[in-house]
Amino acid sequence: ISSKLPDVGTNIFTYIGKLAHQHNAVNLSQGFPNFSPDPKLLQLVDKALKGGHNQYAPMQGTFTLREIISEKIKTLYGKTYHPESEITITAGATQAIFTAISTFVRQDDEVIVLKPAYDCYEPAIELFGAKVVPVQLEGPDYKIDWNTFKSAIGPKTKMVIINTPHNPTGTIWSENDMLQLQEILKDTNIILLSDEVYEHIVFDGKAHQSVSKFPDLATRSIVCSSFGKTFHVTGWKVGYCIAPKSLMEEFQKVHQFNVFCVNHPTQKALTEYLKTPGHYLDLNAFYQKKRDYFLEAVKGSKFEMIPSAGTYFQLLDYSKITNEGDTDFAERLIKENKLASIPVSVFNLNNRDDKQLRFCFAKTDDVLDQAAEILNGI
Amino acid sequence: ISSKLPDVGTNIFTYIGKLAHQHNAVNLSQGFPNFSPDPKLLQLVDKALKGGHNQYAPMQGTFTLREIISEKIKTLYGKTYHPESEITITAGATQAIFTAISTFVRQDDEVIVLKPAYDCYEPAIELFGAKVVPVQLEGPDYKIDWNTFKSAIGPKTKMVIINTPHNPTGTIWSENDMLQLQEILKDTNIILLSDEVYEHIVFDGKAHQSVSKFPDLATRSIVCSSFGKTFHVTGWKVGYCIAPKSLMEEFQKVHQFNVFCVNHPTQKALTEYLKTPGHYLDLNAFYQKKRDYFLEAVKGSKFEMIPSAGTYFQLLDYSKITNEGDTDFAERLIKENKLASIPVSVFNLNNRDDKQLRFCFAKTDDVLDQAAEILNGI
Ligand SMILES: CSCCC(=O)C(=O)O
Ligand SMILES: CSCCC(=O)C(=O)O
Repeated sequence: ISSKLPDVGTNIFTYIGKLAHQHNAVNLSQGFPNFSPDPKLLQLVDKALKGGHNQYAPMQGTFTLREIISEKIKTLYGKTYHPESEITITAGATQAIFTAISTFVRQDDEVIVLKPAYDCYEPAIELFGAKVVPVQLEGPDYKIDWNTFKSAIGPKTKMVIINTPHNPTGTIWSENDMLQLQEILKDTNIILLSDEVYEHIVFDGKAHQSVSKFPDLATRSIVCSSFGKTFHVTGWKVGYCIAPKSLMEEFQKVHQFNVFCVNHPTQKALTEYLKTPGHYLDLNAFYQKKRDYFLEAVKGSKFEMIPSAGTYFQLLDYSKITNEGDTDFAERLIKENKLASIPVSVFNLNNRDDKQLRFCFAKTDDVLDQAAEILNGI
Repeated sequence: ISSKLPDVGTNIFTYIGKLAHQHNAVNLSQGFPNFSPDPKLLQLVDKALKGGHNQYAPMQGTFTLREIISEKIKTLYGKTYHPESEITITAGATQAIFTAISTFVRQDDEVIVLKPAYDCYEPAIELFGAKVVPVQLEGPDYKIDWNTFKSAIGPKTKMVIINTPHNPTGTIWSENDMLQLQEILKDTNIILLSDEVYEHIVFDGKAHQSVSKFPDLATRSIVCSSFGKTFHVTGWKVGYCIAPKSLMEEFQKVHQFNVFCVNHPTQKALTEYLKTPGHYLDLNAFYQKKRDYFLEAVKGSKFEMIPSAGTYFQLLDYSKITNEGDTDFAERLIKENKLASIPVSVFNLNNRDDKQLRFCFAKTDDVLDQAAEILNGI
């Protein structure tokens, strides 16, 4: 049997996670909290289980949950998505992204991906025989150059994938970035896939720039988000996807035959939980405190850093410490220093090595302290 | 935007489910139990939630759960699959099937599908620009003619999809069927995708014929099964997939970028639950009793039937009652008689109408009684 994805191996999170486990390392690699969600939310799952919500959920997801999402988007971003036809609950944002690419990308299409990029976009594009057109962003600030972006667009461009707040760099886009994107895509048929899973983790008083805020972008966009990231339950695998009806209809054709529907008791619990509004609004402050705690703790180290502006990731630049490649250095840190992080080169074009490691600070203070102690000793 | 699946609409279960709900009909359409799972299993989810299993599970699934599956298959079917490299936990069998097709089927390949067929196979094949080669089975017994099957195979045949016990017909394959299949596939490179979600629902003392029992089939096979069907929790969306390492490696490349991993607390609960072996062994008798109860209750009706041999579905032939098309008749039954079933033509080649409706008998006796009363009055 020949492979449709010959160049794809086990993904970096599985690889580093195993290594971290073997070496009993402090684990700041994969992006998940080491603490529990609100006990109320857990109680609501128990209630849903005992209340009999153990059979198939509707294909599009629990209706009331879709209504709640619609309300939230209206409140925060000013746009109305109809719960009946423009919102789908997905098995995490990853499944939403894979399904969106499956739905729209064809053989020989081109899809623009901004690098560094989270690793699930490109294999899905390649699976359909389409071409990834990478646009590499330049560190240390990873600002996008809109002229470079514009020159990557051609007659075969079917889709553009964006991600703000950005994993792995922790950068966010400004309103001006969004307006530039809107201007460039105007008069094209390009579909925009917007990965906004960290929409509620933005720091320093800045606002998340959802594509939903920009009417001319929203009409061409599929937006993915994640309850896992927002409510500290990455292992529940519940996310959602919003898009105008014409796009969502096509998305659901594939969604229904990919997973059909999503874990019901956790959907039901999230529905009940979110009937009390505002839960997600505390998250910016919650994670900003963690970011600041971590930055303060490592400020005496030899690592250099630009504070993360969003997501729960912080890049640390080690170019003052060693000339080693980042994958080698990350492995050595696990084996010798018992600290796990993610080398950023795996997300870059041609695995370009900027001497940056990514640390997840969605951890309790004791774990951040342990990590900082190790980092300060290097 | 143009559609990659122009001929696909909302699937039959969503369509009929909504109609049944609107008309407050007794619902024997979609395949799910109307009763709760073992309370012990529910308690174990609660324990998993409170025990902190709320973050990402391993990409392949909880290791102990994979070990338990390996043990089960060894015991029941005599074949060893290695938990480390040959088993993956999936977000239901549907996701396993979609992922398997995504992994192996390419543009212009041919895939043989036996009709009537569960509705998720064909859209996935078409999404990759491959061709469905249908082989229609003939009612009322839907036995396969192996010569017809053999003549459908050609140089472009990449995959064959089989399903025993069979949804929607309730037929099962014999050992001889499996040996015939093995003989026909010998000396080819054809991949076999075996949908065995009803493996523990087989009646009248017959044995389920898993491809895992047949070494020459197993080496070319991806086998999908479902905890949802076996433990009355279709809404948890936890299933699994087994295959030899060379196939599973390719499957996991796609799986990790489709859903990455599966709902963790329910995986953990199933793991603990299955540490007490033998749970699934009662299921044949449990559902045989329901089948017999239902058949006894409708035996005075004008419907004709061959008793289901496996699955929790019973076909009823209404050709003695009316000449109406089965989709019309199914809709009328919902609207006028308040009873929902699935018209079998939607699963047939060219929607051939055999005047058969499919009824799910995974229901409590009171609901089966209500359904029988309606059926007896027609
Ligand atoms: C789906 S596993 C990866 C989790 C994550 O978002 C990350 O670590 O970047
Ligand atoms: C995934 S919804 C359909 C459930 C089922 O297996 C059936 O009714 O045939």
